[in-house]
Amino acid sequence: MTNPELCDPAVSVDLAPLTAELSAGALITEPDVVAAHSKDWALFCEVGTARALVRAACVEDVQATLRFASEHRIPVVPQGTRTGLSGAANAIDGAILLSVAKMDRVLAVDTVEMTCSVEPGIINQDLKRHLADFDLAYPPDPGSVAISSIGGNVATNAGGLCCVKYGVTRDYVRSLTVVLADGRITTVGRPTAKGVAGFELAGLFIGSEGSLGVIVEVTLELIPAIPEPLTAVGLFPDVVSASGAVCDFMATGARPPLLEFLDGRTLEVLNAYGDFGLPADAGAMLLVQSNGDGSHDAAVRELERFSAVAQECGATDVMFSDDPADSELLVAARRAVAPAMEKYASTHGGGELVDDVCVPRGRLREFFTRLVEIEAAHPEITISTCGHAGDGNMHPGVFFDAADPAAVEIAQHVFGEIMAAGLDLGGTITGEHGVGYLKREWLARELDPVSKEIHLGIKRALDPLGILNPGKMLASL
Amino acid sequence: MTNPELCDPAVSVDLAPLTAELSAGALITEPDVVAAHSKDWALFCEVGTARALVRAACVEDVQATLRFASEHRIPVVPQGTRTGLSGAANAIDGAILLSVAKMDRVLAVDTVEMTCSVEPGIINQDLKRHLADFDLAYPPDPGSVAISSIGGNVATNAGGLCCVKYGVTRDYVRSLTVVLADGRITTVGRPTAKGVAGFELAGLFIGSEGSLGVIVEVTLELIPAIPEPLTAVGLFPDVVSASGAVCDFMATGARPPLLEFLDGRTLEVLNAYGDFGLPADAGAMLLVQSNGDGSHDAAVRELERFSAVAQECGATDVMFSDDPADSELLVAARRAVAPAMEKYASTHGGGELVDDVCVPRGRLREFFTRLVEIEAAHPEITISTCGHAGDGNMHPGVFFDAADPAAVEIAQHVFGEIMAAGLDLGGTITGEHGVGYLKREWLARELDPVSKEIHLGIKRALDPLGILNPGKMLASL
Repeated sequence: MTNPELCDPAVSVDLAPLTAELSAGALITEPDVVAAHSKDWALFCEVGTARALVRAACVEDVQATLRFASEHRIPVVPQGTRTGLSGAANAIDGAILLSVAKMDRVLAVDTVEMTCSVEPGIINQDLKRHLADFDLAYPPDPGSVAISSIGGNVATNAGGLCCVKYGVTRDYVRSLTVVLADGRITTVGRPTAKGVAGFELAGLFIGSEGSLGVIVEVTLELIPAIPEPLTAVGLFPDVVSASGAVCDFMATGARPPLLEFLDGRTLEVLNAYGDFGLPADAGAMLLVQSNGDGSHDAAVRELERFSAVAQECGATDVMFSDDPADSELLVAARRAVAPAMEKYASTHGGGELVDDVCVPRGRLREFFTRLVEIEAAHPEITISTCGHAGDGNMHPGVFFDAADPAAVEIAQHVFGEIMAAGLDLGGTITGEHGVGYLKREWLARELDPVSKEIHLGIKRALDPLGILNPGKMLASL
Repeated sequence: MTNPELCDPAVSVDLAPLTAELSAGALITEPDVVAAHSKDWALFCEVGTARALVRAACVEDVQATLRFASEHRIPVVPQGTRTGLSGAANAIDGAILLSVAKMDRVLAVDTVEMTCSVEPGIINQDLKRHLADFDLAYPPDPGSVAISSIGGNVATNAGGLCCVKYGVTRDYVRSLTVVLADGRITTVGRPTAKGVAGFELAGLFIGSEGSLGVIVEVTLELIPAIPEPLTAVGLFPDVVSASGAVCDFMATGARPPLLEFLDGRTLEVLNAYGDFGLPADAGAMLLVQSNGDGSHDAAVRELERFSAVAQECGATDVMFSDDPADSELLVAARRAVAPAMEKYASTHGGGELVDDVCVPRGRLREFFTRLVEIEAAHPEITISTCGHAGDGNMHPGVFFDAADPAAVEIAQHVFGEIMAAGLDLGGTITGEHGVGYLKREWLARELDPVSKEIHLGIKRALDPLGILNPGKMLASL
């Protein structure tokens, strides 16, 4: 889907009328500031040169920007805190970057309805802290929880560690206020716990990566504060036995709030990065929590069940602890994987591509068998895998020498082979990181032709001029 | 939205080519059989004269029917077991009724992924029984659980009694296979626990009441078998105090698997209908369950909390029991409300209109105050209310003399006043019964103009000829 009618990036557009409509200082054209806001955390994604950055201070700024952009056929790239991993927030040549990061207020908390309404720019962790005062929880906890915004979480349907029990962002969105490409505003979703009046339009905007509208307010469903968990660790000789334990444990009817997988190389890299004291010689580790829904006995029973299953699957050691300090240290280690891998990459050739394949849990053994084969076939790269095992959502990291063009090419090929393995096993190319620029060709492989047509039909219905985030998610359909 | 290009109902169409494509005996034109399949359970909804009924035996029958209908511009009314309450499954003049009720197999149960795949015609209760053998549960339990199909549940996003803790149909749909208006087939949704590859199209079909496609396969997410609950009953002098107890109890962070409201007249009607032994003189009753997520102590604590709150709110009596027989009897009484009311209506003028308003829980007191006022202002009707109080989802029944045209008119006016009260209080015209024919004008009142346009744009993108269930949900937008 290309759109030749968009404004030529080389053509100058007088932005003064837009500046006049916006909050003071919202429109910025200084090239270095615009450039500093032109990319997210993805590697190997095109970064264009935007013509301006709008830091929206209010809904009216968003509307004015989109009206202006529609009038002049200027592409608009909606942005939160730009912590995405797929290039969806990267600049496009000639675009206006439209950031809602400054709109970060909590508008309401309703303890009877168990909902809160927030502006899109609020940081996930900040919202969690705010809600703790009300004994309420908003569970979704992407790796970026401390730096990513709720609006961005909604736009990408962010996942995280707790999803295996508590679900993803989508599961908590009650309603959204969105500004469409032409600047008009609407509220979609339900006002109440139940509601079936018309199509479920909110779901369409969740995970649409800025291609259908700009989210300016989010009402989230909340749950009572989550009980403190117990934590167990299982060590395995290899990745295949560990993934087998995941399948068998989940088949017992387990619903752990966290079930994470770290392979041996990930453990090494973490130990080199921080003082985590992780086992040096394990082939893989499973990190599992249970909160027994508030019952200590039930939590102990669930972890005992894990222990039994792990041992049957060949675990060399299983430990568990109800000391919150142990638990925090282990989860902190898991959360440190991303920066630890970045540091590792910086001293091992500089190249890192993190994949995000999700397969049905029952296919995890096969997936890991495939990963071992892929790595063995390509001595130019190494693969290190961690992931949300309870969901079958794995993040194999491909490391390579970024200065060697041949290695870069092989790494990109391997990155694709890993997605192809996911698709072969009935999975998806992206469990939670999104499509963006990085996987746009791969989306075209995952979707069937009819589904592609539906995507494009909906895009045309909502953004007929095609100004919203062109060249990304839908570009190869 | 009208569509003058549809085939004139009076024009005869040769159905032989369709018959030749379908499973043997699938196409039926006998007028009495077609007529017997021409309406659902809604009152006061138009019932047209269809030209044929197709009882699809397989996906190919559905595809062939829709291809034929598209070619000849014949409207198609998708049907499950026609237990809906909004007329969405009612015949339209000249239409083909397309029933998937015979497609009722369980295709797969995956205990590792905790999902099952089923054909759309399987009855909700039958699926629940099938899953019990695997220690798995599919929670959604509409009042019609014993007679409604999963496909119909998905097409209407059915709710039920357990939603306050366990959510509605939408919360359990992993993916759908749908046949579009032109007969093409696609699978939408996610193959895995997490997945963000493209738009969330499954959500669009859920609750679309046959206006976007025909669901031919459903993959559902399951949870471990739900623990047996304890049950408590609170008796109140009036509806306003009972609704206050709902608000205050939920504000304690309660998540009961069931929190039902029955007003005094409902209790009387139930006692007249069956041997339920319900209190004769209460103004209202709350029925609440807790399963403590498997912990008996936690369940007791939650019900003690309910008891304390109920007494603070003026309850005259609170009892609770851990005898499963008591619990079953009480829930059976609640489930008997619909037939009991039908019987009551048959001996009290014959007229009954059941509403389905959902308001934010915190507005329930005001909603009941409004209901009392509405009833007082209209001596020609009586109102009797039960509902899923924990969700704010109330079913006021309006009873009237169906033989008296003036009373019928007043009853319909009151039916509307109740929805208007719901909208005034920030609620919705339909929490779970759907729009269909019954509330199509009201949908136009609930949605804002931009949302209406999005609905119509999506309808055009998916069903450009407008053959799918015209004249229903979208007809007044």
